[in-house]
Amino acid sequence: MIADGKVKKIRKVGVVYKYDSLGLARKVSAFLEERGIEVEQFHLPSTELEKYDFIVSVGGDGTILQILQDIERCPPIFGINKGRVGILTHAEPENFKERLEVILTGEVRVEKFMRLDCIVNDSRIHTALNEIAILTSEPARLIGMRVFVNDVEIEDMRADGMLFSTPIGSTAYALSTGGPIVDPYLPSILIIPIAPFKLGWKPWIVRRDSSIRVELHPERKALAVADGQKMKEVFPGDRIEVVESKYPAVFFESPVNRIARIADRLKKIS
Amino acid sequence: MIADGKVKKIRKVGVVYKYDSLGLARKVSAFLEERGIEVEQFHLPSTELEKYDFIVSVGGDGTILQILQDIERCPPIFGINKGRVGILTHAEPENFKERLEVILTGEVRVEKFMRLDCIVNDSRIHTALNEIAILTSEPARLIGMRVFVNDVEIEDMRADGMLFSTPIGSTAYALSTGGPIVDPYLPSILIIPIAPFKLGWKPWIVRRDSSIRVELHPERKALAVADGQKMKEVFPGDRIEVVESKYPAVFFESPVNRIARIADRLKKIS
Amino acid sequence: MIADGKVKKIRKVGVVYKYDSLGLARKVSAFLEERGIEVEQFHLPSTELEKYDFIVSVGGDGTILQILQDIERCPPIFGINKGRVGILTHAEPENFKERLEVILTGEVRVEKFMRLDCIVNDSRIHTALNEIAILTSEPARLIGMRVFVNDVEIEDMRADGMLFSTPIGSTAYALSTGGPIVDPYLPSILIIPIAPFKLGWKPWIVRRDSSIRVELHPERKALAVADGQKMKEVFPGDRIEVVESKYPAVFFESPVNRIARIADRLKKIS
Amino acid sequence: MIADGKVKKIRKVGVVYKYDSLGLARKVSAFLEERGIEVEQFHLPSTELEKYDFIVSVGGDGTILQILQDIERCPPIFGINKGRVGILTHAEPENFKERLEVILTGEVRVEKFMRLDCIVNDSRIHTALNEIAILTSEPARLIGMRVFVNDVEIEDMRADGMLFSTPIGSTAYALSTGGPIVDPYLPSILIIPIAPFKLGWKPWIVRRDSSIRVELHPERKALAVADGQKMKEVFPGDRIEVVESKYPAVFFESPVNRIARIADRLKKIS
Repeated sequence: MIADGKVKKIRKVGVVYKYDSLGLARKVSAFLEERGIEVEQFHLPSTELEKYDFIVSVGGDGTILQILQDIERCPPIFGINKGRVGILTHAEPENFKERLEVILTGEVRVEKFMRLDCIVNDSRIHTALNEIAILTSEPARLIGMRVFVNDVEIEDMRADGMLFSTPIGSTAYALSTGGPIVDPYLPSILIIPIAPFKLGWKPWIVRRDSSIRVELHPERKALAVADGQKMKEVFPGDRIEVVESKYPAVFFESPVNRIARIADRLKKIS
Repeated sequence: MIADGKVKKIRKVGVVYKYDSLGLARKVSAFLEERGIEVEQFHLPSTELEKYDFIVSVGGDGTILQILQDIERCPPIFGINKGRVGILTHAEPENFKERLEVILTGEVRVEKFMRLDCIVNDSRIHTALNEIAILTSEPARLIGMRVFVNDVEIEDMRADGMLFSTPIGSTAYALSTGGPIVDPYLPSILIIPIAPFKLGWKPWIVRRDSSIRVELHPERKALAVADGQKMKEVFPGDRIEVVESKYPAVFFESPVNRIARIADRLKKIS
Repeated sequence: MIADGKVKKIRKVGVVYKYDSLGLARKVSAFLEERGIEVEQFHLPSTELEKYDFIVSVGGDGTILQILQDIERCPPIFGINKGRVGILTHAEPENFKERLEVILTGEVRVEKFMRLDCIVNDSRIHTALNEIAILTSEPARLIGMRVFVNDVEIEDMRADGMLFSTPIGSTAYALSTGGPIVDPYLPSILIIPIAPFKLGWKPWIVRRDSSIRVELHPERKALAVADGQKMKEVFPGDRIEVVESKYPAVFFESPVNRIARIADRLKKIS
Repeated sequence: MIADGKVKKIRKVGVVYKYDSLGLARKVSAFLEERGIEVEQFHLPSTELEKYDFIVSVGGDGTILQILQDIERCPPIFGINKGRVGILTHAEPENFKERLEVILTGEVRVEKFMRLDCIVNDSRIHTALNEIAILTSEPARLIGMRVFVNDVEIEDMRADGMLFSTPIGSTAYALSTGGPIVDPYLPSILIIPIAPFKLGWKPWIVRRDSSIRVELHPERKALAVADGQKMKEVFPGDRIEVVESKYPAVFFESPVNRIARIADRLKKIS
């Protein structure tokens, strides 16, 4: 594999599998071990995975999102798709061997995708590849909030919630909320309300280096949710920030043009 | 007041007030008692209110929605607005006396607005003036469902939820979800997904006598919420129906043309 | 066939065909003539068609829309679909004989769908089954207008145009503009702006008996277009009204549930 | 003024005025001439303007868009707002003197905004600051087209048209069509259909260096319109491309934060 322009020798690989994919994970491990690579299998995400030369995820996009939740410095991820519409994966169960082979022979590059940090009162509480969502904690009860970009208020509304999405996330939760599809290589952050009780509003898309801040209206707490995986309560008065993480996600290059993959995924969820 | 075309003598009135409006409620009660009417004050909604000649609500639209939750046969409601954008109310604190006066002198008609029943496994669990919402019970987790109108499947999707709204409700939660504004006198039911994870979808608007049915996908339970007030869990396999209630809500005629009120309300939430 | 509850004897039928469907039209005519019915073939729409017992349209929905442009009192229409996604048609070229047979034997009812009149300065200029559109006459130049329902202003905006659609029309041009799908049997009129230069707006749906009026801003004329077929210029100062026509369109009953047809059509244009 | 990091001496300035702003234009010219600057007044846009040290536009955003139509190498533009909601202008008639003064003293920087070229069969036919629109040339008649990004088909639909917008243009025509608001400094291109006859679709936002291509369906020609100002016919079979222009627009720095200006503009068009 080629990372930062240099070919890197593969010594040990972590294989993470979704509960129903143990059989496939074993095949992957056997395949790698036959090539003299040390393999460790993980059922649950782990910070240990940072130490491996690369990670194989056996599951869907959700499995990759889970893995990333526990990782800062991210080894390259190779995803084998067992889910519905994988956009982060690199192979199907039928063809993972040939794809892995080219990685091992050093002919595949890695690429980085920005992640978002959610920082509350100066402590990072989440890092997300798709989106940080500030959501009502009580179904059918609106939360009110003001949103600032570089200290300029761009929105003040009551809604079910507010999404802050990466370009990669524009085909995830953001797709449900009226946001646009964003080229995954366009360095930017999407800001999209979820079911706002307001006549006039727009999704916003700002630069990756924007400093985004949320102020909850005084009457009600909310949940900060990362990639639909982890959630923490946030409270009126909290200083809630969403900014680019210094720890991007790292993937092997997609075997298919990314715009083509997105166009294909959109057809599948029509 | 004129109900069903007949002038009706007023003998006893229930006054329901929101926690912060006791002072105004006392003024209303005194005003009515001076005219020989028996008045009872309620802080909380009660089925007892069915027995009164009419009801005065001192609060916002939310107070009226709460009152209706506990009432089947609905006496005419007169709303004094202490909320943000009352669309169901008839007077402001400044002018309630003159408006009540015309009611007492028999010159005001009453009007009925359809409500929706939510029926689960043949038992009615909710009646709503604005909307029945089938919502995810876990923030940031989609629920899947199929929706049938007169046994024809019109939608099969995963979403944050699905709304079934009356015309009156089209300026409430339904407004947040991409639904149209519906003339409150058009007998119809709106069906609108909330943040659907699907590229192509549309709000639907069907006749009031439509039989609507929801089937949850097998993987996850949901919440059935009436007017954002009451919620119950519903489960995959449940037979969930939404139909017109045989108990409409009854209000005194609006002093302002209803289309004009809606246009005005829309400006306020721009 | 059964019209207004009475079985009616068929004596003469008009067959209207789209330019590329003459062959099929001849087969239809032969089929009817074999059963002793007098048949006249029309290539172009004609007011003459009012005099026939029923009309067979050989083409797509567009052919039916054209036929209706020239007809006030509408004989029942039977559509044979040669277009993309017929929602107004009753048969395909493969099965028209059996469908026509049941009409001739008197076992099919007719149904009526509301049309809209566009009245300018008290003269009717258009009647439309799908929609009346008030459009800019210059591409990329906005027109400004105010819209009134029963003399209440509900909208004042600049836009590419404004649509006034029947329920049947909700799957035609109205679908392109953010409007909802409306049950074809819900007596109502949709009002939807086309590309409005305004942050906050909503489609409206009002009762069939509403009196709708448009006032153009003084700076620019517009086009009034009926069903995408006929257009006339309208000018600032003109009194432009859209109301239910007293001449509904008449069709044989659809062989398929109409909600099911719409759901099917939506899938085809996903 | 400071261009490309260097302070530049001002010798001659072009003043362009909208037809109703001659009086103000004369005041501007007098103000500059008093400071020893050579001034030429223009009523109509002209390629001559390329030769001036900077340009003063007296009018609205539309005046600036017109000026830019005729200019490749763009001197810095200073806009005095006589229009509705100027987002490109720098001063109001009341305060233009103090703003011009700081330019003349060399304390104001210039900034560049990307423009889009529309290239047909390898010839540039338009350059636009806001958007290139491919529109139907016949009101109420759809055009069909396929859209490619870097030779990947992302859309195939029939619609009133398709917009290709810069970030600056996201508050212009693109705002009417369901597009997001884009940070004017995010180097990107928006692709948004206008009234598409299709159930599922999304606005796209791609990188500035994307190569965008449009193929018209065979049945109908269209119009290519730049900034609502200039239009040319395009035909099925034409090779229609939209790419970043090598000639950006140049403005003096906005006296107000650009995100704040946009948020303000959105409030004005609510």
